[in-house]
Amino acid sequence: MRYVTFRQGEKISIGIVNGENSTITVLSQFDGDPELGIVNLIESTKAPEPTGVHVELGAVTLLAPIPRPRRNIICVGKNYVEHAHEFSGSGFDSGAAQGAIPSAPIVFSKLPETVVAHGDNVIIDPTVSKAIDYEAELCVIIGKGGRGISRASALDHVWGYTIVNDVTARDLQKLHSQWLIGKSQDSFCPMGPIAVTRDELDLGDTAVRCWVNNDLRQSSNTSALIFDVPELISTISRGITLYPGDLIATGTPAGVGIGFSPPRYLQSGDVVRVEIEGIGVLENMFVSSEERLS
Amino acid sequence: MRYVTFRQGEKISIGIVNGENSTITVLSQFDGDPELGIVNLIESTKAPEPTGVHVELGAVTLLAPIPRPRRNIICVGKNYVEHAHEFSGSGFDSGAAQGAIPSAPIVFSKLPETVVAHGDNVIIDPTVSKAIDYEAELCVIIGKGGRGISRASALDHVWGYTIVNDVTARDLQKLHSQWLIGKSQDSFCPMGPIAVTRDELDLGDTAVRCWVNNDLRQSSNTSALIFDVPELISTISRGITLYPGDLIATGTPAGVGIGFSPPRYLQSGDVVRVEIEGIGVLENMFVSSEERLS
Repeated sequence: MRYVTFRQGEKISIGIVNGENSTITVLSQFDGDPELGIVNLIESTKAPEPTGVHVELGAVTLLAPIPRPRRNIICVGKNYVEHAHEFSGSGFDSGAAQGAIPSAPIVFSKLPETVVAHGDNVIIDPTVSKAIDYEAELCVIIGKGGRGISRASALDHVWGYTIVNDVTARDLQKLHSQWLIGKSQDSFCPMGPIAVTRDELDLGDTAVRCWVNNDLRQSSNTSALIFDVPELISTISRGITLYPGDLIATGTPAGVGIGFSPPRYLQSGDVVRVEIEGIGVLENMFVSSEERLS
Repeated sequence: MRYVTFRQGEKISIGIVNGENSTITVLSQFDGDPELGIVNLIESTKAPEPTGVHVELGAVTLLAPIPRPRRNIICVGKNYVEHAHEFSGSGFDSGAAQGAIPSAPIVFSKLPETVVAHGDNVIIDPTVSKAIDYEAELCVIIGKGGRGISRASALDHVWGYTIVNDVTARDLQKLHSQWLIGKSQDSFCPMGPIAVTRDELDLGDTAVRCWVNNDLRQSSNTSALIFDVPELISTISRGITLYPGDLIATGTPAGVGIGFSPPRYLQSGDVVRVEIEGIGVLENMFVSSEERLS
C-alpha cells in the first residue's frame, strides 16, 4: 500500500494513493496528533480505515508522511562505498583519519523540525552557510518498536519506507566536527510525499537517483549499501529502544556536490529531485532567505 | 525559584521547592502533557500557580524536570580545556586529529527517551558496552525560542538550569565515529531533580562536581567553559530555531573515567553523584542489566 498525509483547508488526513498516482482514498479521521501523520496509522489500536471518499491528488496539499516526527530522525553516514570515498577525499570529513570505509555504521541525527514537504522550499541562509549540499536517501519507517532486535527479525519491525533529502551544510558539518548543526538547519529534511509499506520494496534491488535542475547527479541502488537495513536496525537497537514511527535515513550514494572539483553547492533557485524506485519522487526548490525576504 | 516535577500515585505535578529543600508548594494542575513537566510552566499562557497545598519532599517521587523532552537533548562536547585534553589523549576521540581544543562548539544530541530521574538506576548492559563513563554537566533550559539569537540577548532566552549526567558508552562513541549511539543508550541521561530559574545562578562562578562512590572525580567551575552559555545559544540558533523547553547540556569538566590510566569505567553498584552549586544534587546507581534480570 502507498500512503500520503495531506491537508485540505485546515484538516489533516491520511489517504491511500491509488494505482495511477492520480487519486487518493481518504481514511477515516483519527484521534491522535495530526502532525504525526501516518504514525496514527502505524500504532493505533483503532487504525483509520478507508472511507468512500476519493480526492484528486492534485487537489490537496501533500505533507511529509510524518510532518513532525516524535524524535530526531536517525541518520547513517558514509553508507555507500563510492560516496564514502568521495566524502573522505573532499576535505569535509572530520573522521577521515579513520579511513574512508567505516568499520561500523556512522549514526547521527536531524532535529524533527527540519522536516518539510514535497514542494516546500528549502531555505538557503547565506549568512549561515555557503556550502549547502543534497543527499538522496531511502528512509526506513519503524512499525514495531524494540530493543536488541536481531538481524533475522529486523524487517518484521519495519512498517515501510519513504524518501528523504538529507540536506547538509558542509561548512558547518566540518566546523562543528559532530554533525548535528550541519544537518539540522531549519528546513533541511524534505520528506515524502509517499510512504510505502515494506512489501512494496525489494531492498536488494531498488534504484536511488537524484537530479539537480534535471542534471542526473546520483544514481545507485540499495543493493550497494555497506550496512543493509537489517544491520542498521540491529546495530541501533542493541542498546537503544526503537519506537513505532522512528525514522532511519540509510545514507546517500556517490554524486553529492562536494564530490565534484570544484564542489557544486546548491544555489538559490536550484531544484533537487530525488526518485526512489517503487516509492516516488520528492522535489524541492532551494531558495535564499534573502530573496524570500525581498 | 526552584522547581521540581513529581509524582504522587498516578498524578504528575509541578511544585516549588521551599527554602530548606524539605517541602514543596504544589502548583495547580495543568492541561498539557504531564511528561513535559515544567515545560507546562515555561510556555503556558495560563501557567499553573501555587496552591495552598504543601507536601514533604520525601513523600513524593521526584521525576526529571522534563521527564520526556519534546526533542533530542542538544549536547556540547570538549567544552572545558582540561577535559578536552584528557579526552583527546584517551584514544576514544575520533576527532582528535583536529586537535584537543575545538575551534567551534562540538554539538551532538541524546534521544529524549534516555532521560531518567534522580534515584533511578542507569542500566549497564555488558553485552552492549564495557566502557560506561559519567559526565557531570550544567544543562540550560530554553524559555523563549528563536533563531539567530545574538550573544547579547542569549540569556533572555534562558528559562533556567538543571543538572544532567551525560552518561557515555566510550567504546560505542569511538566505534560509530558520530556520537549518537554511544550517548543515547537507554537510561543514559539522568536529569534534575531540581530546575532553577536563571536568576538563581551566576554563570561566571558556579561549581560543578562529581563523585563516584564518594570519591571526588570532577571539580570545576562554569567560569572554565571554553564556549559560554551565550556563545552556545548564539551558535546553535544561527540556523536552527530553538523552542521553549529545549535542553542544552554544556559539556563536562576533566576527571571522567577515561581520563585515568587505566580507565575507570563504571561497574554495577557504583553510585554517581553530581552536584552543581545553586541547583542541587543528582544521584544515580549504575546497575547491570544481568543483575536486574536475576
